[in-house]
Amino acid sequence: MGTHKRRLVATVEYDGSRFLGWQRQLDDPTVQAELETALSRVANEPISVTAAGRTDTGVHANGQVVHFDTAQVRSDDNWLRGVNTLLPDGIAVLGVQEISSEFNARYSALSRTYRYVIFKRQMQPTYLQNYVTWDYRQLDSGAMQDAAQCLLGQHDFNAFRASSCQAKSAVREITSIQVNGSGNWIWMDISANGFLHHMVRNIAGVLMAIGVGEKPAHWIKIVLESRDRTRGGKTAPAQGLYLTKVDYAPEYQVPTPSVPCRFW
Amino acid sequence: MGTHKRRLVATVEYDGSRFLGWQRQLDDPTVQAELETALSRVANEPISVTAAGRTDTGVHANGQVVHFDTAQVRSDDNWLRGVNTLLPDGIAVLGVQEISSEFNARYSALSRTYRYVIFKRQMQPTYLQNYVTWDYRQLDSGAMQDAAQCLLGQHDFNAFRASSCQAKSAVREITSIQVNGSGNWIWMDISANGFLHHMVRNIAGVLMAIGVGEKPAHWIKIVLESRDRTRGGKTAPAQGLYLTKVDYAPEYQVPTPSVPCRFW
Repeated sequence: MGTHKRRLVATVEYDGSRFLGWQRQLDDPTVQAELETALSRVANEPISVTAAGRTDTGVHANGQVVHFDTAQVRSDDNWLRGVNTLLPDGIAVLGVQEISSEFNARYSALSRTYRYVIFKRQMQPTYLQNYVTWDYRQLDSGAMQDAAQCLLGQHDFNAFRASSCQAKSAVREITSIQVNGSGNWIWMDISANGFLHHMVRNIAGVLMAIGVGEKPAHWIKIVLESRDRTRGGKTAPAQGLYLTKVDYAPEYQVPTPSVPCRFW
Repeated sequence: MGTHKRRLVATVEYDGSRFLGWQRQLDDPTVQAELETALSRVANEPISVTAAGRTDTGVHANGQVVHFDTAQVRSDDNWLRGVNTLLPDGIAVLGVQEISSEFNARYSALSRTYRYVIFKRQMQPTYLQNYVTWDYRQLDSGAMQDAAQCLLGQHDFNAFRASSCQAKSAVREITSIQVNGSGNWIWMDISANGFLHHMVRNIAGVLMAIGVGEKPAHWIKIVLESRDRTRGGKTAPAQGLYLTKVDYAPEYQVPTPSVPCRFW
């Protein structure tokens, strides 16, 4: 009996406010647990998935990428319809297809992109409450954009990681960081070869302190060069954070679905 | 002891998915009940509010306008901060100010504007679930826009009202109706001197049937002229609907806060 395993890649969107983060935990509703349960039912065998990025509680994704292995033969479309029928509200698989067995959603990723969305207004958001980071203060997106540029390139980002972060090295390369503003909105798009735990939210926290004028623009360089987490600012809230894109070598032909969030 | 009553106007934003509609009901969490409770606590006296539009369960607002009377003297800013501190998540007052005693949020309204937001994609939305109307079909926004134009002007909209609608006359004047599309999105902005119960959602339902090609473009005219509710289509879902703006005569100087939803 042949049990040749195939590798499949899937792109996943989810509402982070409904789950206790990505990673499977005993008894808690996590995205990984729900996805594995649904895929296992479609496959009629236990399926484990590996994700490009393990997002925290409250963090959303519209471009999460996972891979899994299965001996079952289904068409791509049957996988897609089957898993979406079984998934709970708040998670959708946007695409599934077979991929080279050399592909690994986590280790083959060349770059990950996150978007951090800030809604600035005196009054709290209502229908956007779980989907943006609210700030009642006047933030200057131009000052944030200028300050952010010193993070470009390869640095030791130890000052921007959570104390719980278990990565051996804190060296990462930020390839793009762009802060835009319009009306009540500020949104930051940041790409790097990888991110440390809480790195985007800690960068957002430092930039927001600069944006309101609590700290001068050059403070971000002092924090970066200190490599000392205690020198940083507050970790910005999870609800404004979206994992929007993971890039792989083009030969893998990983599908990139269109992202439904314009920036609001 | 003088108990001269002042009239105040407030602009209100809310997440319709968290409340059983606008209108106060025994024991149910409605926007009116929550707002009256919070305002009554700020005023230290019972406050009743009158709204420009009584939205249904699931319908959102970012431009609802209400008025209320009180003998209490507070600065506009004290009203605003006080009520927002006491309101539950999902409701925010965007502005409060004193206004002429002749002003009535409902009867002085010259025009109301609603936005109906459709998200079209094979897979269900995740973080947008309660905030858009999802359709897995290919809708043609151009066909919807063309068909919609025959509703412009004054007509008897009996075919587009709910059977429960209690308005004496079904004659209303639509002053603007605009259907736009971009990528996964279709959004309709519609203004009229007033709307019947379910009128926007019934118009959206007919336009969506035309947009997918289930019905020809001229069907909307047949429905309109029939004045017969049973000739219409499905009432489109509540979650994509936003009360975005209410217009009054300029001399009232009702504030128009900026709307946080771009169209997504």
